[in-house]
Amino acid sequence: MQPPQHPTLVEVAAAAGVSVASASRALSGASASPKMVEAVRRAAAELGYVPDASARSLKVRRTEQLAFAVADLGNPVYVAMMRAIEGVVRAAGYRLVVSATGADPQMEVEVIRGINRGYADGLIVSPIRITDEVVTEIRRARVPVVVIGTLPASTGIDNVRTNSARGVGLAVAHLVDGGRRSIAFVNGPQDTVPGAARAKGFGKAMQAAGLAVADGQTVGATDFTHDAGDKATTDLLARYRPDALICANDLLAIGALRALRAAGLRVPDDVAVVGIDNTELAELATPALTSVSLGSEERGRIAAAMLLDRLGERGRPPQRASVSPRLVVRASSDPVAPPASSPRKRKQP
Amino acid sequence: MQPPQHPTLVEVAAAAGVSVASASRALSGASASPKMVEAVRRAAAELGYVPDASARSLKVRRTEQLAFAVADLGNPVYVAMMRAIEGVVRAAGYRLVVSATGADPQMEVEVIRGINRGYADGLIVSPIRITDEVVTEIRRARVPVVVIGTLPASTGIDNVRTNSARGVGLAVAHLVDGGRRSIAFVNGPQDTVPGAARAKGFGKAMQAAGLAVADGQTVGATDFTHDAGDKATTDLLARYRPDALICANDLLAIGALRALRAAGLRVPDDVAVVGIDNTELAELATPALTSVSLGSEERGRIAAAMLLDRLGERGRPPQRASVSPRLVVRASSDPVAPPASSPRKRKQP
Repeated sequence: MQPPQHPTLVEVAAAAGVSVASASRALSGASASPKMVEAVRRAAAELGYVPDASARSLKVRRTEQLAFAVADLGNPVYVAMMRAIEGVVRAAGYRLVVSATGADPQMEVEVIRGINRGYADGLIVSPIRITDEVVTEIRRARVPVVVIGTLPASTGIDNVRTNSARGVGLAVAHLVDGGRRSIAFVNGPQDTVPGAARAKGFGKAMQAAGLAVADGQTVGATDFTHDAGDKATTDLLARYRPDALICANDLLAIGALRALRAAGLRVPDDVAVVGIDNTELAELATPALTSVSLGSEERGRIAAAMLLDRLGERGRPPQRASVSPRLVVRASSDPVAPPASSPRKRKQP
Repeated sequence: MQPPQHPTLVEVAAAAGVSVASASRALSGASASPKMVEAVRRAAAELGYVPDASARSLKVRRTEQLAFAVADLGNPVYVAMMRAIEGVVRAAGYRLVVSATGADPQMEVEVIRGINRGYADGLIVSPIRITDEVVTEIRRARVPVVVIGTLPASTGIDNVRTNSARGVGLAVAHLVDGGRRSIAFVNGPQDTVPGAARAKGFGKAMQAAGLAVADGQTVGATDFTHDAGDKATTDLLARYRPDALICANDLLAIGALRALRAAGLRVPDDVAVVGIDNTELAELATPALTSVSLGSEERGRIAAAMLLDRLGERGRPPQRASVSPRLVVRASSDPVAPPASSPRKRKQP
């Protein structure tokens, strides 16, 4: 095998068959099993990987600090992402500092500009609205920036993405398998990157399942929070009676559970509910919430490894990686009971 | 009235009868009602308050950034505290960056040392274990540090505290009023500041209520998390059958709810549950969780105002403030049904 020109930590990890976090730990001398350290070192040697040597020099590494800018630390998905990033960067000897930007592109621009004043050697940013100004600011930044989110390849910015439209598709297919037909969609704000992607995914998946989507069958919450989810679901229920709800994240789904309870509807008997992000809240919810994992922790680990790679060699070509969604089934989406064992009528055949 | 020598934002807010966050907003020109701006300006003028003038000079204010170091961003109480701090410091023109230290004093020492490298102009730290080394490091710090937590007055460090022992006392009194007598306590690690204070508060309050505490009636979880709360409660139930549980924070209480469900015990019918911190999770829990608020948001706002004051005048005497706990009653601690209206027997009279 021809080794890659400038092997990255991501490639070393893939060659060793371990996660990037493990590869980083193994190479940095942090605690790891001897077997894994051996496997990673062998892969690194075969590929000719140079562990962030220049990043370790004082010239480049002035602050020993990396930054993570994220919309909302009240959303456990970002806390999970943060912890994953922290594990990787700490193993490489960096402290992580976190900034909350809200859903405000102007705050993101401010944070990226702040980085230029030298408080961190690199930045991972997970914007929910990617404006041209944000992209321009990232390209101008004096320190490396990795984006967790979907960017056009033409931007030349390191990024880690997922396919949330496909994630919504998994949820639709699961609900259809469980006998649900009147599937409504509680989205977040549609002018956000996740909002737009998830709306598109829902339309496509429903079409693929041969199910029409009426106008009143989708609703956009004003924010990705449980209060907004509660309100949006209440609005939806006033005009449409679903047998299943897909919510664009777990916080919206928690709000939807509350609205359904207030409307006297049982979950999953009357209405199945599926969230997105597979956060801790999904397990804590009553009933426990089926949710689509978008691999937040994995995206965090890969983004951290990309940033370390970039610090090691500023001139390397842009890296892109993608993490696949997967469905985690819990009680909130139990299949509709078959008519034989239950006298309860289904609304649609 | 004799105006104070060096009036602080806290004093201006008190004189205007508004929160420190509002006072900060009003003085910084951020959005606030004209009536409030007027009241705050009048109070500031009367007291001779100088709005962080020297803090606005380049000499002192190099980074336009303040830092907050906190044990665990997975605990919503710290996220609420962070948001409260952020509101105040942003109104004063600062960005906030956050570091998670775990429950590890060594990490806290590292973060405080890191601050000396100049990435932020000041630090608010909320340590759950305050070692001598942490105190020494804070006193040595080149930028102002405010502690959210209880410190001996002799340290001379600005700090905002609450009385969590009194908070536990409120919970005990409430449960006794509701007819509970076999009250168990699920604590976090006892070697932490909150753990030790809460254990003491429980013992004292039970004594005041004339209730004996058997050996097996309290349990210390290994961590302030829901998994640890689940495990500790399961251990407790193997040796003691309570009619009420007080948990040292909401995460432990969420774990306790899970353990009680697994043991076939109903909340609140068989066992009442009370948490501490009054986080978002308390409302999301099923049943909704009664919880003792320790004023985390208020402590955050006051700490932020103290830090801004300190940046305005480095030589001022140390400030201390205290926030009182209050009980927020929800369904998880409904009173025991009176024997007349319910045939169910109580375990103890």
